[in-house]
This record gives sequence, C-alpha cells and structure tokens, in this order.
Amino acid sequence: MICSSPESERIYDGRVISLRLDRVRLPDGRAFQREIIEHNGAVGIVALTDDAQIVLVRQYRAPVEAELLEIPAGTLNKGEDPRDCAARELTEETNLAAGSLERMFFSYLAPGYSTEGMHFFLARDLRSAQGQQDEDEDVRVEMMPFERALEMALAGQIHDVKTVAALLFTARLNLQER
Amino acid sequence: MICSSPESERIYDGRVISLRLDRVRLPDGRAFQREIIEHNGAVGIVALTDDAQIVLVRQYRAPVEAELLEIPAGTLNKGEDPRDCAARELTEETNLAAGSLERMFFSYLAPGYSTEGMHFFLARDLRSAQGQQDEDEDVRVEMMPFERALEMALAGQIHDVKTVAALLFTARLNLQER
Repeated sequence: MICSSPESERIYDGRVISLRLDRVRLPDGRAFQREIIEHNGAVGIVALTDDAQIVLVRQYRAPVEAELLEIPAGTLNKGEDPRDCAARELTEETNLAAGSLERMFFSYLAPGYSTEGMHFFLARDLRSAQGQQDEDEDVRVEMMPFERALEMALAGQIHDVKTVAALLFTARLNLQER
Repeated sequence: MICSSPESERIYDGRVISLRLDRVRLPDGRAFQREIIEHNGAVGIVALTDDAQIVLVRQYRAPVEAELLEIPAGTLNKGEDPRDCAARELTEETNLAAGSLERMFFSYLAPGYSTEGMHFFLARDLRSAQGQQDEDEDVRVEMMPFERALEMALAGQIHDVKTVAALLFTARLNLQER
C-alpha cells in the first residue's frame, strides 16, 4: 500500500481518477475520514468563430447515461501546461486550432470530494487542423450561434455545469474590445 | 463482490461516493473501461436577502487543500426530494429558512467520471431558523452584496464552478418581476 500521508489509505489507482481515504482534522481538533478522488485537473474551452458561432461537442457520458452538449474539454497529462492542454484538446475534439487562447478563470468542479480543478480558456482566430480523437471517445462537433447556446443555458437546457459557467462568463466579456 | 451490471466491477462502497468500473460500449461497437463515481446528487442554493445580499459559506475543502467561498450546498439523502434537501441544507449551513424556494436549473458536475447532478435553487424571503451543522463540517457564513459576489466571479476570484455558474445565472434573472 502506498500512502500519500501518514493518515491516508489508498483504495484505487486508475487511469483518469484514483481514490484515497484521508483522516482530516478540523480546526477544532476533531478528525474525520474523507473520501478523496485524485484527478490531474482539466481544461475547458469556449471556442468562438469570427461570426460569433460557438463550437460545442456532443457525446455520450456513461456515468450519467445521457448524451450531453458541452464545451470541448479534457484532462491534463501529468505536468502538462494548461494552455498546451487546451490547444491539444481543442484540436483533438474539434479539428480546429486557435490563433488566440486566453485564460478566463479557474474553478474546482466538485471540491467536496475531488481534487479536479478546471482552467477555462477562450479560443479565437480558429482555423482547420488535423485532430486525432482519443480512441475511446465518440465526440461530435456541434456549432451554433453563441447567443443560441446562451439562451439554452438560461432555459436550463444545458446539463453540464462547466458549460453553463463558461457560457455565462463569456457573455459578460466585452469581446469587441479585445 | 456486488455487480451493478454484468460488465461492472465494484471497487469501493463509501459514505458520500462509491466507485465502480464499467465496461462501456461505444456506438461503433468497441468497448472500453470507464471509472465511475457514484453519488446521490446534490443541491446548490443562491440565498438572497430582501436587500440584495447573498448568503455564502466558507469552508476548508480537504481534497483541494484550500478554503473556498461557495453557495450553500449539500448531498441528497437516498430518495430525498431536491427541494426538501435544499431547505434542509440551507438551514443546516446558514441558520436560515426560505419562504420561497424556486428551481433554477440542473447540471451534472463532472459527467466524465461522476454521476453527481446538482439541482440549483433560488431562496428568498429568508428568516432565522435553528440549524444543526453536520458534525464533520466547519462551515462559516459570509454575507455580501450580490453584486460584489458577482464581481468576484467575473474577476476569477471564485474557485468553485457551481458557485460561478449559480451567480452568473442569477444575475440574468429579472428578480424585480418575480
């Protein structure tokens, strides 16, 4: 058994996630067990064309047994720079490359039990590129006017929180000025 | 070993999360293993006072080794109605009860590996109530003008994606008309 701390028990070491049980001490001294999913972190990308279309992806998500419409996203390789990862994942999932890739914000996705943090990027100046999808993925590109995607989020029709956050955040940017 | 399907292997059954490995078949027939975290689902609550303050909570999150500022949130008990859960968690974490609790939207948090979906509510007509915090939590209430919290989200100072999504979503509601 490999322990990440003296009071940590490793349960599973996997491909995307691992699981350990930590003994965590609260400020008042009491200690409790916490189930912790280890994840390398990820990137999410709002990719906008010059004519204000957004490039989304639709894929079957086995854990939730549903096809979801999402922004392109993917997991950081160990030690990978988030910007490099964003460029790589955008091309893998959409066959596009971005001339401009700007950081928007960083958020944890489920900080109660997962270490996963996501770096959000805005991709523009898009051009065609030759992407190679991961062999275990089945991702289809779906483009639509950004305003239409925003309306869907506001109507509760987007069921992925990173996509809701990213769309609403982007809507507040003054893209004309950039 | 308990199997949830003929091609599923249970790794861990826990308190908040469980872990299983599924053999998932893509539309083209190829099959791959997926690591799946099982979670009961959750609620997140935007609680607004009559004078446009938002009730946030600050707590240490062991997985990310940081104190985060978040909307009140919590996990559904088995079979619990999301609205009942929202009322319960709001009182447990903030000692407030809501006269009005409206559904906003539903999103999955990390659909690549977790079953967790979150129901977002808007709580208003707040009044004091006697809450009992879970004994393994250390949650402190932090109130601020809603507009200040929104500015923090837009400045990249909120590091929890459910909170970013909920704040930006609420900002688009026409609360005067409701």
